[in-house]
Amino acid sequence: MNHGNNHLHEIRALARTFVAERDWGQFHTPKNLSSALSVEAAELLEHFQWLKTGTQEELGADKLTQVRHEMADVLVYLVLLADQLDVDLGAAVEEKMALNRAKYPADKVRGDARKYHEYPPD
Amino acid sequence: MNHGNNHLHEIRALARTFVAERDWGQFHTPKNLSSALSVEAAELLEHFQWLKTGTQEELGADKLTQVRHEMADVLVYLVLLADQLDVDLGAAVEEKMALNRAKYPADKVRGDARKYHEYPPD
Amino acid sequence: MNHGNNHLHEIRALARTFVAERDWGQFHTPKNLSSALSVEAAELLEHFQWLKTGTQEELGADKLTQVRHEMADVLVYLVLLADQLDVDLGAAVEEKMALNRAKYPADKVRGDARKYHEYPPD
Amino acid sequence: MNHGNNHLHEIRALARTFVAERDWGQFHTPKNLSSALSVEAAELLEHFQWLKTGTQEELGADKLTQVRHEMADVLVYLVLLADQLDVDLGAAVEEKMALNRAKYPADKVRGDARKYHEYPPD
Repeated sequence: MNHGNNHLHEIRALARTFVAERDWGQFHTPKNLSSALSVEAAELLEHFQWLKTGTQEELGADKLTQVRHEMADVLVYLVLLADQLDVDLGAAVEEKMALNRAKYPADKVRGDARKYHEYPPD
Repeated sequence: MNHGNNHLHEIRALARTFVAERDWGQFHTPKNLSSALSVEAAELLEHFQWLKTGTQEELGADKLTQVRHEMADVLVYLVLLADQLDVDLGAAVEEKMALNRAKYPADKVRGDARKYHEYPPD
Repeated sequence: MNHGNNHLHEIRALARTFVAERDWGQFHTPKNLSSALSVEAAELLEHFQWLKTGTQEELGADKLTQVRHEMADVLVYLVLLADQLDVDLGAAVEEKMALNRAKYPADKVRGDARKYHEYPPD
Repeated sequence: MNHGNNHLHEIRALARTFVAERDWGQFHTPKNLSSALSVEAAELLEHFQWLKTGTQEELGADKLTQVRHEMADVLVYLVLLADQLDVDLGAAVEEKMALNRAKYPADKVRGDARKYHEYPPD
């Protein structure tokens, strides 16, 4: 990731222009954007559903290109939704990460994928 | 979004540390990460499913906080998946946006949400 | 619904034959089938994402046909998953409905779509 | 599946009564029901996301019970959506299965999970 446009503000600017040029903002309620985000996430998942683990090798070059495009769609809808709801995604990640660190203390969950509420009480 | 950590590299660094401290990388095949991304996108959608449009006002402050956290989860899984597949998300967005501009020419689709393949031929 | 094949056993028989003829059972782990089910559910949702409410009139005949086919796909994957996990879907529905009746008492939630855990305590 | 209530009409009757008693039909637009279906499918998927294949043994008894309940939720929302759109699910499955048999001829696709459009032309 040494590309120049990896700042979320830049992606938001691209997405805003695309939407404004097509007058599609009228369809972009938070509800509709979260539906579209969910649909794109499933289109991404579709590429992996019958694979063993979905590594680059198992995917192959053509599928990897399609996967990249689905990932782009997911990110664009997420950024558009954040824009509608005035959510600062970077701050939201930091906040959620702090909660996750508290819920899943590293020394308790190391190497274990069970969800926090499934841990036996001390 | 005037916060400092809105660069995807920074979010990736946070996510990598969180995963490494818990030795959870062993579960993070691209297939599993895309499942987790889809699940988080649905948890986000759940907040909107019975609402009319899901504006900030309709959501209310408590739900908006939960929504912010689900959005953070979506972004973290997307960034972790990109990391596994060596995908530059900013470049992927630019590439996909260029394809979208060609598929949905602004002067043809303005104000119309039908998918490009549903447009009548000229 | 006055058609003859509305019994889940009949749908299971159709699905089993289709899968066996193609030797696709090898891909049908419960994990993969639940991914496929989720993907089909999203393909169904895609038809509704930019609509207001998605009535038959708003959908139109062509989209309704596509919607019917996505619904069929959802049901087939659900029945195949039930087959793999020895789940009796009819019994599961009765069991879950009994739980739902206890969680959402009719006289408390009438006309209100908030989830049960959001109800204020008595 | 030797239980008595495996006919889709019976499940529909249970679901209709549950909804009517709570006056929840007002929220059940086709759009909202397809969102809810997608959310329930993802809650089902969540149980499998970090597992290898999700067999009964790998799930364990407690998770299997939760999985059965998520499957019930998926089926109930599917049946409610079919009810709203006057879709005969049994007939839809037969129709879709006939299309699938034509798209994926058994002698061409045996043991191969690639999607039909990825098959090389003859």
